[in-house]
Amino acid sequence: MRMYDLIAKKRNGESLTEAEINDMIKEYVAGNIPDYQMSAFLMAVYFRGMTEEETVAMTQAVAHSGDMVDLSGISGMKVDKHSTGGVGDKTSLVIGPIVAACGAKVAKMSGRGLGHTGGTIDKMESIPGMRTALTQEEFFNVVNKTGLSIVGQSGNLAPADKKLYALRDVTATVDSIPLIAVSIMSKKLAAGNDSILLDVKTGSGAFMKTVEDSIALAEEMVKIGENAGRRTAALITNMDIPLGNNIGNSLEVIEAVNTLKGNGPEDFTEVCVNLAGNMLFLAGAGEIEECIEKAKTAIADGSALERLVAMVDAQGGDADYIRDTEKFEKATHTFDVLAEKEGYIVSMNTESCGIASSMLGAGRITIDSEIDFTAGIIIHKKTGAKVVKGDVLATMYTTKPELFEAAVKRYHEAVVIGDEKPKEQPLIYARVTKDGVLYSY
Amino acid sequence: MRMYDLIAKKRNGESLTEAEINDMIKEYVAGNIPDYQMSAFLMAVYFRGMTEEETVAMTQAVAHSGDMVDLSGISGMKVDKHSTGGVGDKTSLVIGPIVAACGAKVAKMSGRGLGHTGGTIDKMESIPGMRTALTQEEFFNVVNKTGLSIVGQSGNLAPADKKLYALRDVTATVDSIPLIAVSIMSKKLAAGNDSILLDVKTGSGAFMKTVEDSIALAEEMVKIGENAGRRTAALITNMDIPLGNNIGNSLEVIEAVNTLKGNGPEDFTEVCVNLAGNMLFLAGAGEIEECIEKAKTAIADGSALERLVAMVDAQGGDADYIRDTEKFEKATHTFDVLAEKEGYIVSMNTESCGIASSMLGAGRITIDSEIDFTAGIIIHKKTGAKVVKGDVLATMYTTKPELFEAAVKRYHEAVVIGDEKPKEQPLIYARVTKDGVLYSY
Repeated sequence: MRMYDLIAKKRNGESLTEAEINDMIKEYVAGNIPDYQMSAFLMAVYFRGMTEEETVAMTQAVAHSGDMVDLSGISGMKVDKHSTGGVGDKTSLVIGPIVAACGAKVAKMSGRGLGHTGGTIDKMESIPGMRTALTQEEFFNVVNKTGLSIVGQSGNLAPADKKLYALRDVTATVDSIPLIAVSIMSKKLAAGNDSILLDVKTGSGAFMKTVEDSIALAEEMVKIGENAGRRTAALITNMDIPLGNNIGNSLEVIEAVNTLKGNGPEDFTEVCVNLAGNMLFLAGAGEIEECIEKAKTAIADGSALERLVAMVDAQGGDADYIRDTEKFEKATHTFDVLAEKEGYIVSMNTESCGIASSMLGAGRITIDSEIDFTAGIIIHKKTGAKVVKGDVLATMYTTKPELFEAAVKRYHEAVVIGDEKPKEQPLIYARVTKDGVLYSY
Repeated sequence: MRMYDLIAKKRNGESLTEAEINDMIKEYVAGNIPDYQMSAFLMAVYFRGMTEEETVAMTQAVAHSGDMVDLSGISGMKVDKHSTGGVGDKTSLVIGPIVAACGAKVAKMSGRGLGHTGGTIDKMESIPGMRTALTQEEFFNVVNKTGLSIVGQSGNLAPADKKLYALRDVTATVDSIPLIAVSIMSKKLAAGNDSILLDVKTGSGAFMKTVEDSIALAEEMVKIGENAGRRTAALITNMDIPLGNNIGNSLEVIEAVNTLKGNGPEDFTEVCVNLAGNMLFLAGAGEIEECIEKAKTAIADGSALERLVAMVDAQGGDADYIRDTEKFEKATHTFDVLAEKEGYIVSMNTESCGIASSMLGAGRITIDSEIDFTAGIIIHKKTGAKVVKGDVLATMYTTKPELFEAAVKRYHEAVVIGDEKPKEQPLIYARVTKDGVLYSY
């Protein structure tokens, strides 16, 4: 195999064989293909795309470039969830406990936040004592005992993806649907779960800005997953408005707990119940309507909350914080962001809301930043709300009051107030399974 | 300027500004832009193309990355010619003397052969004593005295092109018309001539395989040249059939001399007269028809041959070899390639004919290969000829008879004999000037 020929093939719109893709990924990871050839190839993929066969082969090759996690030490159906990332997205902390309460297993590896999006691991670490780095044995034990465990990513998962992503990031080749699908699914296949639910966020706060692109990405990922023998589905969910009201680490844990207690925001609760229902469906717990009902019941009867308490306890965290969220340390300073005029909130730039929260100390600007777990934003008025001048749009929290000014400015820029009430947006745009795209179910 | 942004801009189909292109080339040559970013950019250019403004700016930036030759030490109009490379292309040795005989100046830097194409410098060095590496002073003196000089490229011309070409060569980004135009024209602008004639070869022995692509390339190059204040034109000439009958170094010199004596092959003579006429036109010697007549006269009255004799003499070569080509050393071995069946020669893969000649020792397989000046091929039957079994198609020459077998095999593969007489091909497809494309003139 000469890399030159593979670049020329793709450039000319031809398809690579599975063997060619395997060789290419192997030789690239081994350092035998220089970055300047790979980046030319990736740009050719940007323009020419990849066939389903190529995407499947590349995902497998990238997954097999490192450890393939073996979850057979955990009994039952293991179901994974992946979100493409959003603002205020604390769903894992709610749906993991729901799914576990309904009998499937959640053995989840999560990431940390960077830029405008938060990370589940950071959120969990706002609970005192909580350990997110477990040995494999501890991890398996927690799942077998409580039904769920969420830990930081460990081991050498899909190293080819790390290398490829770093290159795409500096060569303007990130925005390619097949390459995004390969990147996400290679890590999911390596993580070893039986089935995978994908939460493809769409809108101003998400990586995918349009529903069409989100569906295209979802379709690619479902094909890859099913082809690899994992039951796979995707929900296309709204990230044009922050999910729930709270952004920030302990603030999001509190909101997740409230939701498991049945007191969560309506939008967030609905998304969680749908995601959890779909995970249960993939785990074989019944028809989709039935699974969604089970999810609702797990909230109503308190069984899901019990699972969160059990997991926190099993991972060394102080479960009293879950039973009584008033125990969480509070930010030393608060600031109310007031509406500057009367009208409707026409739109919110959700990415900017996330950045404002980061600016208060809730997120990492660089990979080495220290996080202020108490920092963040509670949103009181979201898109569609009617406001008068002086209404509190949101309350900001931080331990460093000097950070308010810039964050408030950013938040004001993000929230557009106009005269006309905006059209209501769906929370869930579509569901994608191996049988196709369903716009309502 | 961030290179990432320039890649993304081009990827999205936007245009770069002149300042962005200047910065990009400067920083790339300085080593501040890594190859993996430049190759992604070049692949984006492959798909998106470049506007005329971008192509002009990039050519100027690449030209100015090194020395800009100052030919003001040579009196009169200096006119350059560039061929995109072909098989049996010994035109420079004929048209240089013609143009000089008609009063314009030819101060030409030429290259060596590599792969299937020969190089003018190698051909000249088959004349005993001939020096092709002159000091600038010697070079100017020869041109001022004889009207022409052909020397090897010296100095640091367009180093950015060397670096870019090496990268394109391994990333499948050579075949981009704007990038080819930039590469050729940057070196021509740096070489300092007042006007430039481009000979764009088309067909199986050329880099450009179709007339349409050749015209597109010619148009780009003419625009770049005119924009830089150089009078520029192009001829699109046939390289689907080898030019003339002789391939190989001293064999081509002999054919060039015969042509200057009025005894050259008809096709080669016609192309030379047209190229020389166009060069004279660019040098301001009159209308095009008039200039072509002048070129014919310079052959007929022997004045062009005199110029070649004078140049060879001035550059240390033994001009007796020009006066009497029988003096050239002969190959020690010859081999007649015979027709294996009756019919018409339907086509000749001209690149393969060139490779066969190289295999006999006439060319370089690698940059360090030693050349056998006596080696090559004299073609007796070209496309369109009727042959019977046993007719001599070509005679091969070499000092190493063990090389015949593979070269003969290659030559047979190149020559297709069929039942129907093929359609006659034009020698010159079109002429491209700043006023547009002329298909006959």
